Amino acid sequence: MRMVDLIGRKRDGLEHTPEEISFIVQGIVDRSIPDYQLAAWCMAVYFQGMSPREARDLAVKMAASGDQVDLSPLPGIKIDKHSTGGVGDKTSLVVAPLVAAAGIPVCKMSGRGLGHTGGTIDKLESIPGFRTELSLPVLFEQVKTVGVGLVGQTGNLVPADKQLYALRDVTGTVASIPLIATSIMSKKLAGGADGFVLDVKVGSGAFLKTKEEAEKLGELMVAIGKNAGRKTVAVLSAMDQPLGQAIGNALEVKEAIATLRGEGPSDLERLSLVLGAQMLILAGQETDADRAEAKLKTIIANGEGLAVFRRWVAAQGGDPQIVDDPDLLPTAPVVVGVESPVRGYLSAWETEALGLTSMRLGAGRAKKGEPIDYGVGLVIKKKVGDWVEAGEEIAKVYARSQAEATTAVAEILTEVKLTTVPPPVSPLVIGYII
Amino acid sequence: MRMVDLIGRKRDGLEHTPEEISFIVQGIVDRSIPDYQLAAWCMAVYFQGMSPREARDLAVKMAASGDQVDLSPLPGIKIDKHSTGGVGDKTSLVVAPLVAAAGIPVCKMSGRGLGHTGGTIDKLESIPGFRTELSLPVLFEQVKTVGVGLVGQTGNLVPADKQLYALRDVTGTVASIPLIATSIMSKKLAGGADGFVLDVKVGSGAFLKTKEEAEKLGELMVAIGKNAGRKTVAVLSAMDQPLGQAIGNALEVKEAIATLRGEGPSDLERLSLVLGAQMLILAGQETDADRAEAKLKTIIANGEGLAVFRRWVAAQGGDPQIVDDPDLLPTAPVVVGVESPVRGYLSAWETEALGLTSMRLGAGRAKKGEPIDYGVGLVIKKKVGDWVEAGEEIAKVYARSQAEATTAVAEILTEVKLTTVPPPVSPLVIGYII
Repeated sequence: MRMVDLIGRKRDGLEHTPEEISFIVQGIVDRSIPDYQLAAWCMAVYFQGMSPREARDLAVKMAASGDQVDLSPLPGIKIDKHSTGGVGDKTSLVVAPLVAAAGIPVCKMSGRGLGHTGGTIDKLESIPGFRTELSLPVLFEQVKTVGVGLVGQTGNLVPADKQLYALRDVTGTVASIPLIATSIMSKKLAGGADGFVLDVKVGSGAFLKTKEEAEKLGELMVAIGKNAGRKTVAVLSAMDQPLGQAIGNALEVKEAIATLRGEGPSDLERLSLVLGAQMLILAGQETDADRAEAKLKTIIANGEGLAVFRRWVAAQGGDPQIVDDPDLLPTAPVVVGVESPVRGYLSAWETEALGLTSMRLGAGRAKKGEPIDYGVGLVIKKKVGDWVEAGEEIAKVYARSQAEATTAVAEILTEVKLTTVPPPVSPLVIGYII
Repeated sequence: MRMVDLIGRKRDGLEHTPEEISFIVQGIVDRSIPDYQLAAWCMAVYFQGMSPREARDLAVKMAASGDQVDLSPLPGIKIDKHSTGGVGDKTSLVVAPLVAAAGIPVCKMSGRGLGHTGGTIDKLESIPGFRTELSLPVLFEQVKTVGVGLVGQTGNLVPADKQLYALRDVTGTVASIPLIATSIMSKKLAGGADGFVLDVKVGSGAFLKTKEEAEKLGELMVAIGKNAGRKTVAVLSAMDQPLGQAIGNALEVKEAIATLRGEGPSDLERLSLVLGAQMLILAGQETDADRAEAKLKTIIANGEGLAVFRRWVAAQGGDPQIVDDPDLLPTAPVVVGVESPVRGYLSAWETEALGLTSMRLGAGRAKKGEPIDYGVGLVIKKKVGDWVEAGEEIAKVYARSQAEATTAVAEILTEVKLTTVPPPVSPLVIGYII
């Protein structure tokens, strides 16, 4: 088998055989296929796509290219949740303790933030003392006793994806639906869960800007998961404005705690219930989404979710005091309000731009490995559809310096749109792919 | 400027600016753009194409990436002829002396054969003593006195194309019309002629199998040439069967001599007249194709073309005796006829396959640099439309050994198609792109 022939087949719109997919993944891992051939192949995939069967084979073979986690020491059906990434998306911090409190063990690996989106690991590490590097036996023991555990991706997980992603990043082939789907699903499969609830974000703050693209990605990921023998469901959710109000690591932890206390923003609570309910359903505990959501709502109301969160923080070395006194979390020295110069309906947030403003304040990274500042970020005070008076505060900036705050305020004023008529209301949960 | 952004622009179907094209060519030459980015870009070009303006800029910048020949020491308007490559295509050997005899200096650089097509340089080198490596001053002096000179590509001609072509060859991006057009035209532009007559081959023996593809290529090459300030015309000609009868270096030289003597196959004579006439027109010597062809026909009839050929061979060190006694050319030790097992109309030759059979007999190379055997090859005795009796000879094989001849005979019998009804007659000259 020659890679130049496989490039030609994909270029001509033909379907790769399972053997061809194996050849490609093997060639990525052992470096026998040169980068220039992989790059040409990625671009051919960008234009010609992949069948669900090809994508499944690619994801499964990539998952098998390195370590694969064995979650069987944990009891019951293990369900993982994954978000394709958005701005202000702290649902994992809410969903994990809720679902655990409902009796479903949550054992999760998460990533760090890059670009305009944050990562769950960074958010948790903003809690003083919180450790995200645990050995698997320690993690499993914690999940058994506390019900929940979350670590950074460890070991040699999906090396084929690491190499392919690095190449896609510099060859204009990141935005390929099948390559995105196989990259995500290979990591999910290697993570070892029995089922996946996929939160596919769509809108100005998401990687995918249109519903059509998001649907295609969701459908392909669900097909990959199911064809690989895992229960899989995707929820399409709006990312046309930040989820909740807070953007930035400690700020988001505070908002997650408020939500577990029943005092969080309604959109964040709603999406957390929707995703958590699907996890309960996949785990076989519930069959009806409404009943499952009601159960999780009760877990918020009776404080069981917050109690699990507290035990979780403590189990991973974090200071559980932050739950009752969130001011113990890192805070930025400079806090400046952003006032609207005009009145009108807030009709749009440029969500990706907000994420980048937060990143530049220090909350995120432009490149892997850059240090971040846990205290900085933004809190938007108005959501799409809200009425804003001239001079009213629409956001708050949390910065390291007055100069950085001033820059961020100016940026935010260009990232908001006000109109004289109310904008159309778009739903938070756009649809399900089952 | 970042190459990853330029890949993204081409991927999204946008047009590169002249500055972007310069950046890419510079990056190819100084190796600052890694191969994997060029490979992804080539594949994006494969799918999104190039505008004539982009293609012109790319060809011109590539031409300027190395040495550019200055033909101004030669008098008059210099016209080059180029063929996109076919099987049995020895027209340059006929056209060059005819046009030179008409008073238009012909100063040409040619390539060697690769794969199923032969190269003019290889054909000329089958003449004992013929040298194809002359310095430019020596070449110019010869063109001034003899009227014609032909050398191999020398010096650092279009290094950007050399690198890009090597990469395309292993990344499935050879068959991109704009990349083919810019590759050819960059070399033509660097060759320094004032005008180009392009013979675009279409059919089973050509790189382009359909008229539509050939038209697209011809149109783009003509646009590149004209936009670069050179007179350019393309002739679309049929390559659905070998041109003439001979395939193989010395065999083709013999056929070219016969044609200059007025005794050649009619299709070879016809195409030579058509291409030569266009050269006379571009050079400003004639305005009417019919008149120009008549003039060249006279040059055949009165022996002036053959006389120039004889002087040309002698000037480049070859034995001019071969003109009068072609048996002085290298010949193969084994000659075997191929007899048709059935009767019928010869309705098709698999022309590329014939070229590959000749290559395997030793007349061509599978890889650059391989040695070739000047004496071997094939002569087809029947053309498309001819009636063949059972047992009648349809071809002759010229081989180094009985074993190789036997293999070639078996191959040729699978490369011919006979039918009970006469095949449709397709024209040799399909069209002109002016």
